[in-house]
Amino acid sequence: MVLVAPRNPLNIGAAARAMANFGFARLRVVNPYDVAFREARSAVHAAPVLAAAEEFSCVADAVADCRLVVGTTSVGHRELHHTLRRLEYGARLMRRELAQGAVALLFGSEKFGLSNEDMSHCHWLMRIPTVDVNRSMNLGQAVAVCLYELARDSRAAAARAGRQGAPLKAATAADTEQITAMLVEALERSGYIKPLTAGSTRTKVRRLVRRLNLTARDAPVVLGMLRQILWKLDAPTKT
Amino acid sequence: MVLVAPRNPLNIGAAARAMANFGFARLRVVNPYDVAFREARSAVHAAPVLAAAEEFSCVADAVADCRLVVGTTSVGHRELHHTLRRLEYGARLMRRELAQGAVALLFGSEKFGLSNEDMSHCHWLMRIPTVDVNRSMNLGQAVAVCLYELARDSRAAAARAGRQGAPLKAATAADTEQITAMLVEALERSGYIKPLTAGSTRTKVRRLVRRLNLTARDAPVVLGMLRQILWKLDAPTKT
Repeated sequence: MVLVAPRNPLNIGAAARAMANFGFARLRVVNPYDVAFREARSAVHAAPVLAAAEEFSCVADAVADCRLVVGTTSVGHRELHHTLRRLEYGARLMRRELAQGAVALLFGSEKFGLSNEDMSHCHWLMRIPTVDVNRSMNLGQAVAVCLYELARDSRAAAARAGRQGAPLKAATAADTEQITAMLVEALERSGYIKPLTAGSTRTKVRRLVRRLNLTARDAPVVLGMLRQILWKLDAPTKT
Repeated sequence: MVLVAPRNPLNIGAAARAMANFGFARLRVVNPYDVAFREARSAVHAAPVLAAAEEFSCVADAVADCRLVVGTTSVGHRELHHTLRRLEYGARLMRRELAQGAVALLFGSEKFGLSNEDMSHCHWLMRIPTVDVNRSMNLGQAVAVCLYELARDSRAAAARAGRQGAPLKAATAADTEQITAMLVEALERSGYIKPLTAGSTRTKVRRLVRRLNLTARDAPVVLGMLRQILWKLDAPTKT
């Protein structure tokens, strides 16, 4: 559970409480507006979750050890560049991945949700199936609903995944991000990325790399390739 | 939705907000502690729900016109004289009944839940499947989870709802093969592919590119990147 730029400590506490209710322990907070969030009174029976919460200054670090990164959105207010899944189905995919390793579920700030930059770290997005005219949920309630669905019928879901045989393990977010950084570097050195549009191109590259669904086995291979290409792109100017 | 003796107006507002989110309109409040609950700021986008809320002085009146009355409980703290159903199953029964007429879902006060007297008006009880050591949920979050489950479309869990419904089109084999060829070229020029093992490396690269599940939309982007990198890798020797 990763809360990005949450403003209200009461909502962080409410998120922690829902985590305790549904058996989730690892809370990560990126740039909280109120640094004293650990004292939130709304975290009834969830003091251990809040106490153990980890703070990060950027999304990349907060999801570095996760194999799957899922963002939440209420959509409608901007164009999405990601696959968008309904909670019922997305939670099933997340449960399957949880059997393999860490999975991050991102929630944006109460006011603005996740930024495009935040979303670019996600493999796909998930939305709670609210009615169209009232999509915006309270943060604590949205967290509770998502965790309820994630904890729902977990045995049945595990049994189903088992029958299909072991899926390939996904690359960690850290590897995926390093691949992104090196690819961006290669594209800069080769002149593909123009200074004027560098920011948006970098975001596009990050999204594209996430869409590739790299496996843990392939990630080091791709890193090796990029390292060699970078070395060669650099070489002529060094000699 | 019937809130019995709720203490905190913020929770009434949060319940109203969840109702607006999941398409429920009729809120009834029995003996609220704070009579000014209609001004609750937590009822974001749910002002109409709060404004239309009906007040009652006893549970009997509040559920008089309902065909099915279901109470919620976190159990554990007292003996129950009712059938207790998990939310997933109970919500199914409630949905069936909702097709016939009005159904009441009762929530007790934040501190004590429903009293035995309140429960005696219920046909059966329902609990949210929390972990045993942390059963007590925040009222607004419990309401959100119950309404989410009530509004849940079981078919949606199976349906693969991609972006705007349609799954992403895969890249053509021709594009995939061109990407493979250009990547191999880049790896040769950068010295990643050694002459002795060139054949097997090429095969590995081809398999890796297929595992990436490239989409039709991404393929030309990747081709453009590779073209630029190849041009740069070649450039120094030409000038």
